[in-house]
Amino acid sequence: MIAVHMNPEKCSFSLQLRVRNFEVDWQGIVHNANYLHYFEIGRIEYLKHVGIPVDMRSIQSDSKVVVVRNEIDYRSPALFDELLEVYTRVSFIRSTSFAFEGMILEERSRRLIAENLAIHVWLDPVTDRPVRVTEAFRSRIRAFEGRNVEFLPE
Amino acid sequence: MIAVHMNPEKCSFSLQLRVRNFEVDWQGIVHNANYLHYFEIGRIEYLKHVGIPVDMRSIQSDSKVVVVRNEIDYRSPALFDELLEVYTRVSFIRSTSFAFEGMILEERSRRLIAENLAIHVWLDPVTDRPVRVTEAFRSRIRAFEGRNVEFLPE
Amino acid sequence: MIAVHMNPEKCSFSLQLRVRNFEVDWQGIVHNANYLHYFEIGRIEYLKHVGIPVDMRSIQSDSKVVVVRNEIDYRSPALFDELLEVYTRVSFIRSTSFAFEGMILEERSRRLIAENLAIHVWLDPVTDRPVRVTEAFRSRIRAFEGRNVEFLPE
Amino acid sequence: MIAVHMNPEKCSFSLQLRVRNFEVDWQGIVHNANYLHYFEIGRIEYLKHVGIPVDMRSIQSDSKVVVVRNEIDYRSPALFDELLEVYTRVSFIRSTSFAFEGMILEERSRRLIAENLAIHVWLDPVTDRPVRVTEAFRSRIRAFEGRNVEFLPE
Repeated sequence: MIAVHMNPEKCSFSLQLRVRNFEVDWQGIVHNANYLHYFEIGRIEYLKHVGIPVDMRSIQSDSKVVVVRNEIDYRSPALFDELLEVYTRVSFIRSTSFAFEGMILEERSRRLIAENLAIHVWLDPVTDRPVRVTEAFRSRIRAFEGRNVEFLPE
Repeated sequence: MIAVHMNPEKCSFSLQLRVRNFEVDWQGIVHNANYLHYFEIGRIEYLKHVGIPVDMRSIQSDSKVVVVRNEIDYRSPALFDELLEVYTRVSFIRSTSFAFEGMILEERSRRLIAENLAIHVWLDPVTDRPVRVTEAFRSRIRAFEGRNVEFLPE
Repeated sequence: MIAVHMNPEKCSFSLQLRVRNFEVDWQGIVHNANYLHYFEIGRIEYLKHVGIPVDMRSIQSDSKVVVVRNEIDYRSPALFDELLEVYTRVSFIRSTSFAFEGMILEERSRRLIAENLAIHVWLDPVTDRPVRVTEAFRSRIRAFEGRNVEFLPE
Repeated sequence: MIAVHMNPEKCSFSLQLRVRNFEVDWQGIVHNANYLHYFEIGRIEYLKHVGIPVDMRSIQSDSKVVVVRNEIDYRSPALFDELLEVYTRVSFIRSTSFAFEGMILEERSRRLIAENLAIHVWLDPVTDRPVRVTEAFRSRIRAFEGRNVEFLPE
């Protein structure tokens, strides 16, 4: 479990999203599955921002990255038309896997909405077996995150 | 983290779902957020099955139950048109919270697709503060789950 | 505009769907975009039923079929947990296009929920230009629909 | 059917949307149901822009507006990460109904992506029977659209 809250000051990248009416469920709050969309938008834009191309063709040919685990903590429900601030960072890189952390705040009140840990694994696109996270990815993340990203042996 | 796989034999309730084409993403596999829909269908049908009415009006008036945490482990991607078996159970009930566990197998191959732990909290519908899980809910779950559900003090 | 209601008796194929909680919006009714999912499930299952394989690989290699127009008439909102009967048929086949009609009734009350006309075009997978609907498709539909499908010259 | 293309110059309001990866289907293009989300975002932001509050509580108490018909023409598929320009306008107001038109262009190439006509009906929130579109709504739209909106007797 995520014992303590993520620290948004460790996040060098954020973006803003507007809550849409069709994301709100019968309880009048954003449906719990939609936060995975928000966090994923954060990850995609993060990758574009640090210069790692996200392209369906390149993903399927050169390499294949899949999500193997998602943890989401819902702190306070987001409401229709609220503006959300989505913070995203890579927190660690292991041999064949790495972790994205995400955190959502409501823009005006700085109310904490939700937190996410998403573990990704690098696969060989032919055999589907885990392979070492590429040096290209490691160096891009290191250049952007600096001391905020941990490189773990295993 | 879920250290070991859920045991489907502890699940007295399951249902079947067909993977739909619009749930499959550009990688040709079910998009990671859609599994939350599958697990939630499992929970709703479980509640109906054990005799706990799920009605938007009753939820909003008498009581209010919200998801505060979701953990999903993606074991093997589900593919278009596969028939999935969704196992659901309540694994523990604490003072003001309880846990649903879910497990998805592909029907033919018994391939493990994904696992879920979803922590729910019971709220006072007026103050939004946690309140004790109702006796009605506890006794229904006890009657259905028998010794498979744990009642924890805190 | 669809001047008159579709006739469900012309439909030799139907299936049942349960309305899920996450398909219901803040107004307490199924969100208007979700009916397109229901109708599409009807079309996919129709194709499987009449023996036309629906496979993402075959679609992308041998042929390519795209939706070019959707008309949806919302007659009565569907509600959480209702069981819907989705009727589907191919109503006409032109040179390079064909039409699917769909109709949704609530199972118990036979209340008319929504109607759909979806025009599809057959494309050359390389040039993306319209090509003649294949003989294989025409003969399968003719065999299943009999006199209920119209073959139009243009 | 929409005989001719909408004229974007008649639209005094537009917004930009980024195509997200989870909106792209197995064919590598935006799934046909997601355009309804894009057009609806256009309508909601249009209403906010012209000063008509969109609030789930006000909708359910004072008045009730529902979509009764949607027409979508798919002109060219939108692709992952494209920036879309969504044009929205109210084209006519009848006694108890009104029409929103929408048009989506790809921002860079000005490629026409899709067009939409969405007919809405004003309902009495108690009886659910059509009632006259309010004067408040009519005057707001007239003030914003000027001669581009038609007021039709029936």
